[in-house]
Amino acid sequence: MSILDILLGKPLATSDERGEQVGVSAGIPIFGLDALSSAAYGPEAALTLLIPLGLAGVAYIVPISASIIVLLTIVYFSYRQTIAAYPGGGGSYTVASENLGTFPGLLAAAALMLDYILTAAVGISAGVGALVSAVPTLEPHTLSLCLGILALITLVNLRGVREAGIVFILPTYLFVGTLLLTIAVGLSKTVLAGGHPAPVVPPPAPLPAATAVVGLWLLLQVFSNGCTAMTGVEAVSNGVRAFREPTVNTAQRALTVIIGLLIVLLAGIAYLVRAYGIAAPDPGQPGYQSVLSMLVAAVAGRGWFYYVTIGSVLVILSLSANTAFADFPRLCRAVAQNNFLPHAFGFRGRRLVYTEGILVLAALAAVLLMLFGGVTDRLIPLYAIGAFLAFTLSQAGMVAHWKRVGGSGAGHSMFVNGLGAVATGITLLVVLVAKFTQGAWVSALLIVAMLSAMLWVRRHYGRVAEETQSSAPLAVVKPHAPIVIVPIQDWDRIAQNALEFALTLSAEVTAVHVAMEDEDRHLQREWGRMVEAPVTRAGIVPPKLVVLPSPYRLVALPICDYVLKVEAENPGRQIAVIVPELVERHWYHYPLHNKRAEILKWFILLKGNERIVLINVPWYIKA
Amino acid sequence: MSILDILLGKPLATSDERGEQVGVSAGIPIFGLDALSSAAYGPEAALTLLIPLGLAGVAYIVPISASIIVLLTIVYFSYRQTIAAYPGGGGSYTVASENLGTFPGLLAAAALMLDYILTAAVGISAGVGALVSAVPTLEPHTLSLCLGILALITLVNLRGVREAGIVFILPTYLFVGTLLLTIAVGLSKTVLAGGHPAPVVPPPAPLPAATAVVGLWLLLQVFSNGCTAMTGVEAVSNGVRAFREPTVNTAQRALTVIIGLLIVLLAGIAYLVRAYGIAAPDPGQPGYQSVLSMLVAAVAGRGWFYYVTIGSVLVILSLSANTAFADFPRLCRAVAQNNFLPHAFGFRGRRLVYTEGILVLAALAAVLLMLFGGVTDRLIPLYAIGAFLAFTLSQAGMVAHWKRVGGSGAGHSMFVNGLGAVATGITLLVVLVAKFTQGAWVSALLIVAMLSAMLWVRRHYGRVAEETQSSAPLAVVKPHAPIVIVPIQDWDRIAQNALEFALTLSAEVTAVHVAMEDEDRHLQREWGRMVEAPVTRAGIVPPKLVVLPSPYRLVALPICDYVLKVEAENPGRQIAVIVPELVERHWYHYPLHNKRAEILKWFILLKGNERIVLINVPWYIKA
Repeated sequence: MSILDILLGKPLATSDERGEQVGVSAGIPIFGLDALSSAAYGPEAALTLLIPLGLAGVAYIVPISASIIVLLTIVYFSYRQTIAAYPGGGGSYTVASENLGTFPGLLAAAALMLDYILTAAVGISAGVGALVSAVPTLEPHTLSLCLGILALITLVNLRGVREAGIVFILPTYLFVGTLLLTIAVGLSKTVLAGGHPAPVVPPPAPLPAATAVVGLWLLLQVFSNGCTAMTGVEAVSNGVRAFREPTVNTAQRALTVIIGLLIVLLAGIAYLVRAYGIAAPDPGQPGYQSVLSMLVAAVAGRGWFYYVTIGSVLVILSLSANTAFADFPRLCRAVAQNNFLPHAFGFRGRRLVYTEGILVLAALAAVLLMLFGGVTDRLIPLYAIGAFLAFTLSQAGMVAHWKRVGGSGAGHSMFVNGLGAVATGITLLVVLVAKFTQGAWVSALLIVAMLSAMLWVRRHYGRVAEETQSSAPLAVVKPHAPIVIVPIQDWDRIAQNALEFALTLSAEVTAVHVAMEDEDRHLQREWGRMVEAPVTRAGIVPPKLVVLPSPYRLVALPICDYVLKVEAENPGRQIAVIVPELVERHWYHYPLHNKRAEILKWFILLKGNERIVLINVPWYIKA
Repeated sequence: MSILDILLGKPLATSDERGEQVGVSAGIPIFGLDALSSAAYGPEAALTLLIPLGLAGVAYIVPISASIIVLLTIVYFSYRQTIAAYPGGGGSYTVASENLGTFPGLLAAAALMLDYILTAAVGISAGVGALVSAVPTLEPHTLSLCLGILALITLVNLRGVREAGIVFILPTYLFVGTLLLTIAVGLSKTVLAGGHPAPVVPPPAPLPAATAVVGLWLLLQVFSNGCTAMTGVEAVSNGVRAFREPTVNTAQRALTVIIGLLIVLLAGIAYLVRAYGIAAPDPGQPGYQSVLSMLVAAVAGRGWFYYVTIGSVLVILSLSANTAFADFPRLCRAVAQNNFLPHAFGFRGRRLVYTEGILVLAALAAVLLMLFGGVTDRLIPLYAIGAFLAFTLSQAGMVAHWKRVGGSGAGHSMFVNGLGAVATGITLLVVLVAKFTQGAWVSALLIVAMLSAMLWVRRHYGRVAEETQSSAPLAVVKPHAPIVIVPIQDWDRIAQNALEFALTLSAEVTAVHVAMEDEDRHLQREWGRMVEAPVTRAGIVPPKLVVLPSPYRLVALPICDYVLKVEAENPGRQIAVIVPELVERHWYHYPLHNKRAEILKWFILLKGNERIVLINVPWYIKA
């Protein structure tokens, strides 16, 4: 087990939980990476749609960013309240299912799960994509790089929550620090230059003349594209339990810092983009550069600072997948606790993390990456839907919460959450309509499929619980020894051992032997001398030997049929099948011995019923 | 099972064996394909080495072919005698081990196995290679084509010996028929033209001037290259049991036809190659054509007959792998019967073929094809070694056989076999020396490795037999009920069922429960009312409940440790662990239930000993 120790760290006791909880500074990289990294692509996604407006379009980035910041502020207050109201972890699933009902809750859960799976795949491939466009010789290794980073993130997460935070601290703060510095320098230059700073490196793309006029539809689309900057905001509220005591307070502070930083980044980027007149170039064009790249170059030139900043952006993008790893397992656990997902999602592994969720997420992300060869751009339209569906349901749930709770201040809280629900709901509709044919219909279908699967799981668990639950005391019937059947292949110590045990259990013992057509009848000839004589001498009823023919050279099937026959002929009796089994001490001996005992056990378990009991009498070889 | 029925055919009873045996006409494609197809590459391999001699070199093909034919005749008589002496299947392994001892036998077996594995891979890739050079657009699909043909051959062989023969009859006779016709036409043209026929299509490559003189070393190399035409000759003697009654007679007739055809083909090709002045062009040159292709074009022109002939050559080359599939499983079975390979090689599947051998051969050939991307030319030097090592050992074994048997005619037979042994032994040495650095050392290493593995397997089986064999009658001790331990997860009908069974076995029953830190203590609270009270009322000693802590959230390990503790504290007693298990009726319910029962059984089986017995009390869910 020492390899596991090295890879994953020593097992943690349940009582070590407190040591695994994180404070604000480690919580930000874990639960904030996704949200913070979206500052790198949200503004760009909005600016791209403004290209047809020419230079005039750039100006619109400020009011649109302002409205996104307003929306973000609303969502922030909503989630602050949610964290306080749900200290056990108040993700969209919990809030929606407690306040709106099971079905809306599951809808939110399915939407978020889809979102996390896509985030994991898209985040990694976006980071690798940026790396590959910087170092084109790596291009043939795109998929390997993606899978390597995925494996790394999975491993770090399996090592526990705290370690994940510690590993990601440096890149996160490097990213935030360099961007904040860029914004500070850019702002002071702008102020000193009276609003029109001279770029160190001018943005390369000359702005085309306007080819469109501003319309409401266009602005709504720009707004909804910019809203991708908001994905990942819900992570903290889902992971409250991972924070250090006082849990609620620590989580709220982490959320405040994350949203605060995100707002500063978005506002600063929007202001500087307008001040420096940077328009997003068409991503299809040669010489394409990202908006952040042009901005940093314009403010600080292309020195070492530029490369550190852009490098940290690449790292952060590919690590933003980590937020999915922090939240997806927690979400699955919450759903599994309500019996809508396999219970295995609720078990905590050696490092106190929900191992099953981490592995399932890694597997699904790996499948997506392999299906798309590491280039998952086309998946982006699929995943805004999930986030905004979850936001809307969560905030609608909070409205219902305040209505139910009532009391002073409830009206105000309800208004804030209601506003958020309406705003994110409208965004959801815009995204759905604008991107339906681009792939949003796939998201809708997948969410419906996941919903059905969860309902099916719940129904199955319900039926099993109904069948197995019992509050009745033990029914003590007169102990009646079972009918014992012992399959025997040959007369050896393995068979002897099993027969001796059979005689301790019951007076009704039958040995069963499957005879091949070409074998000598050694067992039949010797039965009297080897078994009947000594047993009779000891005053016990001797076991009889039943020989079964096998024209098709099968062994397990004839025995299984015989057991079922005996069971049918003896209603009400318990049948015990004693399977003698040779056990190898070394794995490399495994292919050397036949697996008939295993096949027989499997057959009987599969075809049997409650009255048929399997007894495994092992024989260990020392060789 | 109906998919298996369609793919593999209905199961055959052991008594159907006679119907699966083959006559001469079906036996030739099955056991002769490898030998006959070597007429397509043996002469070419020899001619290639004669290139440096210019036109003068072509003349040497006739004496060299003549000497190969003499050798072939010697080998023919040797194997004829072998078939008569070993009607149960007299491959090199049997003959060498019975007459020379275990070690030479195993050496022959290892050499032949290696040879068959290589034949399967090289045959298929040679056929596909020829196809690809005819239809270059197929080139990117080389590996897929190879694996497809491999899968087809595997499937046909799994369907049974007879079907394999029937499928391959048409291409085999097409190949033999067209080549014989070519030879007949060419001969008559040559005779009519007084020894110097005019080719319809002249051979393209102008012969270069001689750049070397004839030396003994060169001629020995040419001879040994030409000897690849002899590979596959041993197949019939190994598969005697597959032939129809009178077995020996049928097998001998099949061998006669195969060798006879091969001799006619080799002699005809050699004669016509000299008459038409066809020299092998360098395979590296552009416009390369095989010798057979030039010969057929020279005799018959490039009409439909040419394409039918060359087409049948391609098919036969790739199907020559089938001989390996016919013989490798039989060889493995013979070795396994002597305990030098896993016994699984000796079991006959639903169609009376040795399934395990077929599947292992297919897997190894697939690995080779994938490692070399479907181009296995470089493996050819590896596989003459195996064939000639087996020939030499087999014939040396026959010499020892005649010496032992004695009697009239033994001297003559000994002389024939001794001649063969010396001739093939010399060839073996020549091949080894000439090709040692080209890869023959790999063969030598692999043969040594296989030999060691077989000896290791034999030693293991020997030890197991020593440990388990028993000729003692049953030792009847006073039946003493076991100590029973029942792991219980919760109070439900599954646990109830297991406890009720436990009470029928013994008065010493202990229930074991692993307590998680965060669970409510429902089971502990209810134990008195649910179990102790009713059992005591019935006048039985009530089972006690042991609660085990689990700081690391493990379940199987604490239970297993407890069982081992009880076992250590009660020397001489039998411990029965009753594992309650929920059994799903549908595979798709499998991921929904935890696998603790399975993990526990596996743990106890692995760490336990003969005194610990596992009892599986199943509970079937109907949901």
